[in-house]
Amino acid sequence: MALQALYDRIQSPDPQLLKQAQARLDRLTKPQGSLGRLEEVAAHYVMMTGELKPNIPRGVVFTFAADHGVTTEGVSAYPREVTPQMVLNFLRGGAGVNVLARHAGVDVKVVDIGVDYDFGIVPGLIGKKVMAGTRNLLREPAMTRAQAEQAISVGVELATQAAQEGFGLIGTGEMGIGNTTSSAAITAVMTGRPVSEVTGRGTGIDDAGHARKVAVIQQALDLHRLDRAPALDVLATVGGLEIAGLAGLILGASAARVPVVLDGFIAGAAALIAVGLQPRCRDYLIASHRSVERGHQAILEQLALKPLLDLDLRLGEGTGACLGMSLVCAALKVYTEMATFGEAGVSEKA
Amino acid sequence: MALQALYDRIQSPDPQLLKQAQARLDRLTKPQGSLGRLEEVAAHYVMMTGELKPNIPRGVVFTFAADHGVTTEGVSAYPREVTPQMVLNFLRGGAGVNVLARHAGVDVKVVDIGVDYDFGIVPGLIGKKVMAGTRNLLREPAMTRAQAEQAISVGVELATQAAQEGFGLIGTGEMGIGNTTSSAAITAVMTGRPVSEVTGRGTGIDDAGHARKVAVIQQALDLHRLDRAPALDVLATVGGLEIAGLAGLILGASAARVPVVLDGFIAGAAALIAVGLQPRCRDYLIASHRSVERGHQAILEQLALKPLLDLDLRLGEGTGACLGMSLVCAALKVYTEMATFGEAGVSEKA
Repeated sequence: MALQALYDRIQSPDPQLLKQAQARLDRLTKPQGSLGRLEEVAAHYVMMTGELKPNIPRGVVFTFAADHGVTTEGVSAYPREVTPQMVLNFLRGGAGVNVLARHAGVDVKVVDIGVDYDFGIVPGLIGKKVMAGTRNLLREPAMTRAQAEQAISVGVELATQAAQEGFGLIGTGEMGIGNTTSSAAITAVMTGRPVSEVTGRGTGIDDAGHARKVAVIQQALDLHRLDRAPALDVLATVGGLEIAGLAGLILGASAARVPVVLDGFIAGAAALIAVGLQPRCRDYLIASHRSVERGHQAILEQLALKPLLDLDLRLGEGTGACLGMSLVCAALKVYTEMATFGEAGVSEKA
Repeated sequence: MALQALYDRIQSPDPQLLKQAQARLDRLTKPQGSLGRLEEVAAHYVMMTGELKPNIPRGVVFTFAADHGVTTEGVSAYPREVTPQMVLNFLRGGAGVNVLARHAGVDVKVVDIGVDYDFGIVPGLIGKKVMAGTRNLLREPAMTRAQAEQAISVGVELATQAAQEGFGLIGTGEMGIGNTTSSAAITAVMTGRPVSEVTGRGTGIDDAGHARKVAVIQQALDLHRLDRAPALDVLATVGGLEIAGLAGLILGASAARVPVVLDGFIAGAAALIAVGLQPRCRDYLIASHRSVERGHQAILEQLALKPLLDLDLRLGEGTGACLGMSLVCAALKVYTEMATFGEAGVSEKA
C-alpha cells in the first residue's frame, strides 16, 4: 500500500547533527546558550533537515477545512455554515491566519477537504473534497477507513509537492465547526485521559454546552470502544477530514525532511494520529504555542513537545503556527547571520 | 528643572480607549478573545498612543553601551574590553540584536553613553559619553547625581527625537560587562528582596563567581544604605550609565506616548528606576520576555507586567525586545487588517 511505503520512508534524524549545529551556535558572539530556545530550535531544524548551512526557509501554512456530522448535537457555539463562510474569508485574505501569515512572510494555502458546501470553482481554493463533511460520530463512524486514508493522502501529496516546490517549513492550519469535539475524542483515546480532562470550550460554548459536549464524546467513545485501537481506526471513527489531512501533511513533510510547525489543539490531535501511524514523524514536529483549549496540554505531554509561545490563543486556522514559523526563521537567522567571536574580534569567556 | 518638567508631562492613558479598542477586536472574524494576548497588546497600544486607528509603527531599539567600575571585583565571566568590542560588532551588524532587529523590521541605534574606550568618530555610533564607565560601586557611588541625570537626559532626548521622527515603538537594549551586578543591586533595593534572590549568573559565571557577585552586591548595599532612598540616588549609587540612559528613554517615550518594549533584566532595572521617578510611565511599558536571569521575575512582579515570551533568553542587547516588537506589530495587524463579521459575511455566535 502506498501510504505504508511513505511511512516507512520516514527516517529518524541523526543526533550528531544537533551537536554540530550547537558547536556553530557556541562560536557566535554571545554567551553560550544565551539565546535559549532560539538556539534549540535552530539546532533542531538543522538536525531535521540535515542542512548544516540552511537557507532561511520559505514557509507555507496549509489550512484544511471540513465539516463535522457531530455538529447536529449542539456541541459548537457557531453554526455549521461558518465553515464555508470562513473559507471564503481565507481566500479574500481577511482572516486571522491571513494577517499573521503576511506578518510572518509565509504563504497560506486553503484546502477544501470536506466542507459541506459546493464552492464551484473559486480562485485559490485547493479542491480536494473527500466527502461533504463527516457523519455524526455519536451515531456511527465519522468516516470509513478508505475515506480516512484518502484524506491522509491529500495531506501527504500537498506536503510532498510543497517540498518539491522548495518550501522548507510547513505549518498546520484548519477550519471546521465542530472540530474540537472530534479532537477531544481523539485526544482522550490516544492519551488515555478522561474525556472531561481533554474537552474544552472550543469557539466559546457556555457551561451547559460544555457539559453536553463532554457527554456526547463520552457516549461516542462508549459506543465505538476504541481503547488500544490502531490510529487509523481512531481517526476514521471519531476524527475529521481536516484532521486526517493534517496527519497526512505531517507524515508527508516528515518523509521529505521538512520540519512541521504545529498550530494548537486540532493540529495536536492530528499529530497524535500521525505519530500513531509512524512514531518517527514526531522528530519533525515543532510546537508553536500552547492553546487555551484544555486538551492541548495533554497532547503536548504525550508528544513530549514544548511549545514556543504561550499567548492564550484559541483561534486555530494556523494563526499560532504563523507566529511559530516566524520564530523558527528568527532562530535560523541567528544561526546563519550572527558573527563568530573570531570574525568580530571579540574576546571569549575568561 | 527640565527633567522634572518632563516627568510631569507624562499622563496616565484613558482606560476608555481600551474598551473602544476591544469593541473593535470583538467585531473581527474570530471568536471573541480567541487571539488572547495579541488582542490585549493591540488594545493596550491603542490606549497608550490614543490612536484608535493606528498605523503599524516603525520601531527602533536603542542599545546603550557603558562600562562598570565594579568589574574589577571579578563579577563577570567576560573581560571588560568586550563592551567596546561588542559596540563595534553592533555597528557592523553581526550581533544578536542586529539579526533579530532585521528579522523584526526595526532599526537599531547604538549609543556610547559610557564605554571606557575612545571610539573616535565611527559611522553609526551615537556618541553621548557621560564618563568612561562608572566608578566601583563597592567602594564609592558609581556616579554623582549630576552624572546620573545627564545620562537620563541622553535617553530622554533620544526618545523625544525618535518620536518626532515618527517612530511609534521603542525597544530597549544595552551592552555593558558588569551590568547584571548593577541591575541586581538596583532590583534588591527597589523591590526589597534579598540580594541572593535577585542575583543571577549574568553572562555565565560559575558557582564561586556567583557567590562573589552576591557578596559584592551585599557589601555595597551595606555600605551605601539605600533603603527608602529616592530612585535617583539608587541609580547614581549602584546603577550604570546605560541603565540611566534606558530609564530616560522610558520616561521620554512615555511623555511622547510612544509604547516602550522592554528587553530583559537590565531593562527591567531601568524600568524600576523610571517608575520610581514617575510612576505613570509604567502604563507605557510592554514586557517582551521573561529572562533566565533570576532577578527579572521580581521586577516583573513589582511592575505588574506579564511578559509576552518565555524563551530562556539571557543575552540582552535588545534581542528579546526585537521579538516582542514583532509581536506588537503582529497584534496591530490583527487589529487593523482582519475583516469584521459584517465585511466578511460570516455568521456570528448563536
